Amino acid sequence: MVIILKSNPDKRQLDNLLSFISKNGITAHETVGTSRTILSLAGDTSSLDIDALRALDIVDDVKRIQEPYKLANRKFHPNDTIIKVGDTLIGDGSLTLIAGPCSVESEEQICMIAKSVKASGASFLRGGAYKPRSSPYSFQGLKGEGIQLLIKAREVSGLPIVTEITDAEQLPLFEDVDIIQVGARNMQNYELLKRLGKIDKPILLKRGLSATYEELIMSAEYIMNGGNHKVILCERGIRTFETYTRNMLDITAIPVLKKLTHLPVIADPSHATGRAELVAPVSAAVAATGADGLIIEVHNDPANALSDGAQSLKCEEFESLAEKLRAITRSMR
Amino acid sequence: MVIILKSNPDKRQLDNLLSFISKNGITAHETVGTSRTILSLAGDTSSLDIDALRALDIVDDVKRIQEPYKLANRKFHPNDTIIKVGDTLIGDGSLTLIAGPCSVESEEQICMIAKSVKASGASFLRGGAYKPRSSPYSFQGLKGEGIQLLIKAREVSGLPIVTEITDAEQLPLFEDVDIIQVGARNMQNYELLKRLGKIDKPILLKRGLSATYEELIMSAEYIMNGGNHKVILCERGIRTFETYTRNMLDITAIPVLKKLTHLPVIADPSHATGRAELVAPVSAAVAATGADGLIIEVHNDPANALSDGAQSLKCEEFESLAEKLRAITRSMR
Amino acid sequence: MVIILKSNPDKRQLDNLLSFISKNGITAHETVGTSRTILSLAGDTSSLDIDALRALDIVDDVKRIQEPYKLANRKFHPNDTIIKVGDTLIGDGSLTLIAGPCSVESEEQICMIAKSVKASGASFLRGGAYKPRSSPYSFQGLKGEGIQLLIKAREVSGLPIVTEITDAEQLPLFEDVDIIQVGARNMQNYELLKRLGKIDKPILLKRGLSATYEELIMSAEYIMNGGNHKVILCERGIRTFETYTRNMLDITAIPVLKKLTHLPVIADPSHATGRAELVAPVSAAVAATGADGLIIEVHNDPANALSDGAQSLKCEEFESLAEKLRAITRSMR
Amino acid sequence: MVIILKSNPDKRQLDNLLSFISKNGITAHETVGTSRTILSLAGDTSSLDIDALRALDIVDDVKRIQEPYKLANRKFHPNDTIIKVGDTLIGDGSLTLIAGPCSVESEEQICMIAKSVKASGASFLRGGAYKPRSSPYSFQGLKGEGIQLLIKAREVSGLPIVTEITDAEQLPLFEDVDIIQVGARNMQNYELLKRLGKIDKPILLKRGLSATYEELIMSAEYIMNGGNHKVILCERGIRTFETYTRNMLDITAIPVLKKLTHLPVIADPSHATGRAELVAPVSAAVAATGADGLIIEVHNDPANALSDGAQSLKCEEFESLAEKLRAITRSMR
Repeated sequence: MVIILKSNPDKRQLDNLLSFISKNGITAHETVGTSRTILSLAGDTSSLDIDALRALDIVDDVKRIQEPYKLANRKFHPNDTIIKVGDTLIGDGSLTLIAGPCSVESEEQICMIAKSVKASGASFLRGGAYKPRSSPYSFQGLKGEGIQLLIKAREVSGLPIVTEITDAEQLPLFEDVDIIQVGARNMQNYELLKRLGKIDKPILLKRGLSATYEELIMSAEYIMNGGNHKVILCERGIRTFETYTRNMLDITAIPVLKKLTHLPVIADPSHATGRAELVAPVSAAVAATGADGLIIEVHNDPANALSDGAQSLKCEEFESLAEKLRAITRSMR
Repeated sequence: MVIILKSNPDKRQLDNLLSFISKNGITAHETVGTSRTILSLAGDTSSLDIDALRALDIVDDVKRIQEPYKLANRKFHPNDTIIKVGDTLIGDGSLTLIAGPCSVESEEQICMIAKSVKASGASFLRGGAYKPRSSPYSFQGLKGEGIQLLIKAREVSGLPIVTEITDAEQLPLFEDVDIIQVGARNMQNYELLKRLGKIDKPILLKRGLSATYEELIMSAEYIMNGGNHKVILCERGIRTFETYTRNMLDITAIPVLKKLTHLPVIADPSHATGRAELVAPVSAAVAATGADGLIIEVHNDPANALSDGAQSLKCEEFESLAEKLRAITRSMR
Repeated sequence: MVIILKSNPDKRQLDNLLSFISKNGITAHETVGTSRTILSLAGDTSSLDIDALRALDIVDDVKRIQEPYKLANRKFHPNDTIIKVGDTLIGDGSLTLIAGPCSVESEEQICMIAKSVKASGASFLRGGAYKPRSSPYSFQGLKGEGIQLLIKAREVSGLPIVTEITDAEQLPLFEDVDIIQVGARNMQNYELLKRLGKIDKPILLKRGLSATYEELIMSAEYIMNGGNHKVILCERGIRTFETYTRNMLDITAIPVLKKLTHLPVIADPSHATGRAELVAPVSAAVAATGADGLIIEVHNDPANALSDGAQSLKCEEFESLAEKLRAITRSMR
Repeated sequence: MVIILKSNPDKRQLDNLLSFISKNGITAHETVGTSRTILSLAGDTSSLDIDALRALDIVDDVKRIQEPYKLANRKFHPNDTIIKVGDTLIGDGSLTLIAGPCSVESEEQICMIAKSVKASGASFLRGGAYKPRSSPYSFQGLKGEGIQLLIKAREVSGLPIVTEITDAEQLPLFEDVDIIQVGARNMQNYELLKRLGKIDKPILLKRGLSATYEELIMSAEYIMNGGNHKVILCERGIRTFETYTRNMLDITAIPVLKKLTHLPVIADPSHATGRAELVAPVSAAVAATGADGLIIEVHNDPANALSDGAQSLKCEEFESLAEKLRAITRSMR
């Protein structure tokens, strides 16, 4: 940690600060510059409150040198985390495809899509049962019934299932779900994250619309701090000034998150772009960066989908995309 | 609603669309332009799924004409909503000051600050008991004990209290709280909003870091749709590219939200700027736009505050700011 | 300047770096932390290239401590810069009003508006002659003829004139203009800024749509570095994700820019909001922060204005706003 | 174009509007909805001023249906534009590599890099002679001398050259340059764009930091409107809230710009990321979306580069990246 003092700091206040730092077992080195004095701290500064330091009258700014996360930090855990669900691995260097409709609508729909995406090469079935919708007047999902239908689709297709939780109270219904998804709007719902830290199930954590890399990793840290280290990070687009697409997929997030953490990193081009015709080129880009997977919306009948039809691929479009993605990943070996 | 068709739409698909619209009791007027055909719909289009329409092969774009919110919409409720807490009114044209520390730390601290801000002209005491912190390693608040201390501070000062909820499970502890705050990170925690819609207590709803005006109002609509119409909107800064301040207070939000809705609108310059020295000028700006109130962090000893000290005013700074704000509001009559 | 080294830096490379720093007459203090080593530099670091340092294999990050601007920096020039145009002062603590149409359209129009805004209390007449328009098919302004009409309007009203330059080649036509405006799109047109640094005329420099405070000040520094110290900074809204208004006026920019620099700071609520009905409340906010002035679009007939009619006040609306602003500034003394 | 009227529009004003529309040879169809009336216009609406319409008292909003650009619009020019420089084609379906140092520093440096990147597969040499720098105290480039050195490097390597112009006055010095680059800061320097529209040379137009797709295309339209149709669009990162990278490369821009226009689209991962270690994964992503090329910074000695060293690849890193990119493009055929 580096503390930059205002020019001509009050002598008595500076002595107080130095003695406070020293009492915390930290050594401060003073560098007197032309216009400012800098204190460089050596020792475990994680116990120091950066805001309290900034509030001091003699302090101009405080800069953190170390990342505030530990369990998710690749510096302390250099090996990739590989997550195992049944026989499927996520994070082992292959490109895992998670596919399925935005919302579970009926047994027929979800089973039909499950079999189709399995045949095309998907390893997981996704489908929304609890839908966070910005309007209280929109379809909110089939809820518990939707989860039961996903379980049926797993039976007929053999694909493990991924679905979103929106409140800790729903947890009992998720007992038989393979991967629990936390949506972008709940990325900083810390009470939910703490509860998910207490279970033994992979968590697919989506980046919030305006979350920094560090904030996303800190949310993973909340889950890991509870004991559950099976966290998958998911880039799903951030909010910018451009309105042509729904959000903007941050392609750079993939190599950066893989560098900063040891967790698997996937991306969601369907929600990021909000437009079916952009899913294929953006998915290709994600695969080429070395991501661990993609979560893609696929529907048998997008025009009649109850939610987010505009961004869903048709089953045959997904099939040809999956083939293209395999070609790209093969070319990178 | 206006539907813009692609050029040369398939005749059969267009007929399907027109008959679907007509079956919903809506009239479609067709305008054939040089390069595109436009369908203007008249009737109650709130039942139409905009995404499903966009997913149709013949549709280029769909533009909504009506706002998607009803209960919060000033068009249908032209009179200002005035919220009464004890003898205090919010939204009646006066500038309500809500002041207090970021976190409740001790009985002595909160009671001392309560008496001080009351003497300076505050009508409400704020203080955090449940603190949503981006790090699991940071102080998370005194929780239930913090609420008890706020209640004691209310007794000694006479000020009604405002404090933040972070999960619906905490609701029983909030029974004796006067106004419940929903923080920016939970603005789209819809399960929490639905639960708050079922109680009879004012809700102070903060705008998310990257929430549009419409999204903030839709979150209010979630609460109102449950039956609780006592919602106060709070602008607390959005996230932009500028890093000098923590966030950027959107001053325009105040007149816009007051135009679009009938709800009281306040602002939080402390969290928006993150810097004590900017709280006074930004508060003056908020008052001058005709806002209904301000929520301001005040601490007796910012340098030793357990959280967010850098943005807290000292008690005497708040006193002189309150005086300045009264002069501005008087000048505007 | 602070240099943060990667863990276990190569010994030989570190020696090279230390000797390079020392050769530049700078002292480096080394602090060895638990996971990283920090070098704090004392001396004139302005000659060091921060990017070259960052490119070194052993360097993790470099943080600048000193602001990169000197001439505009309040630390070295604590007194406010006051700019004198004829008998009018800008930056002397009063609120200067600059008003007029987006575009000069005709002699009758500009003279009529000039007399009206003068009567309402404006000290300067604004009007666009060279119009930077995003479409090559839009009206581009009356150019040289527009400047001549502004000069006529100055004669009949007595108001000094402000108009925008879009290329250094136009400079000869601006000889009789009182204040030259540089628009947001040209804020980093450095060749233009260098040329304006060589003349003796106040420059009204608008902030670019995505310019940081530091970048805006660095553009002022370009002008000042040429010898022309008469620069007025203008906040005119930044680009964010919210599309309800054209841009978002950053109210915090005013106190921040006044703290960091000694230059006068004004704001443009017309371009920032793009909506006439928001100009009055946002102008009131700007006045309440202690800004040095406002530049406001006023038109006698907004519905028939050739450009930007939607954001122009009618003459009578400006009159009542000017009165309101005087009341606010009086209340702040 | 669609005009949405306020509820209960004044009858006389509506008649005025309708007769104005009709006088412009445009037909207006009126749709009376439950709360609003919509006018759908058919005919050539490009002559109507959208701002003037919005300024009318009876108008609530105006939505444009047609894109405001014509010459760059793929709707009117379905075939890809292919640009020929000597024997090299840009936009013909292959991936063109443009490589070289940020700044030209010396004959030795530029010739050495030119030969190296040519051997690795680059088709063009880039190098800055006029450098737009945010500080007036930073190295501003070798200017005319730099262009002469680029020409020498072309002689020894056979690679055509690309370099940036910052003011129209420099044009005579660019006569022997193969492709003229317009930087992000000058994307809306319309006087420069108009001048470049009058010459017969390919223009590489970079997207501004906060420019929308439409604004970038409109800037191309300025050049094309002058007669020069050889425009190459370049995505080089936009400004967002994330500060880990210098800017954020918008990968979606590539398929979107290729859909909306017929112009070649390339990307600049060096400036977008600002970090050498991210150039390879982001370049791979760009190649996988089907971009027409990449412009990449390469330096023989990044640690001693005079500008932007931190983002430059070493020659051998570029060689291995070029090979990787060829594998990806082969896999996509």
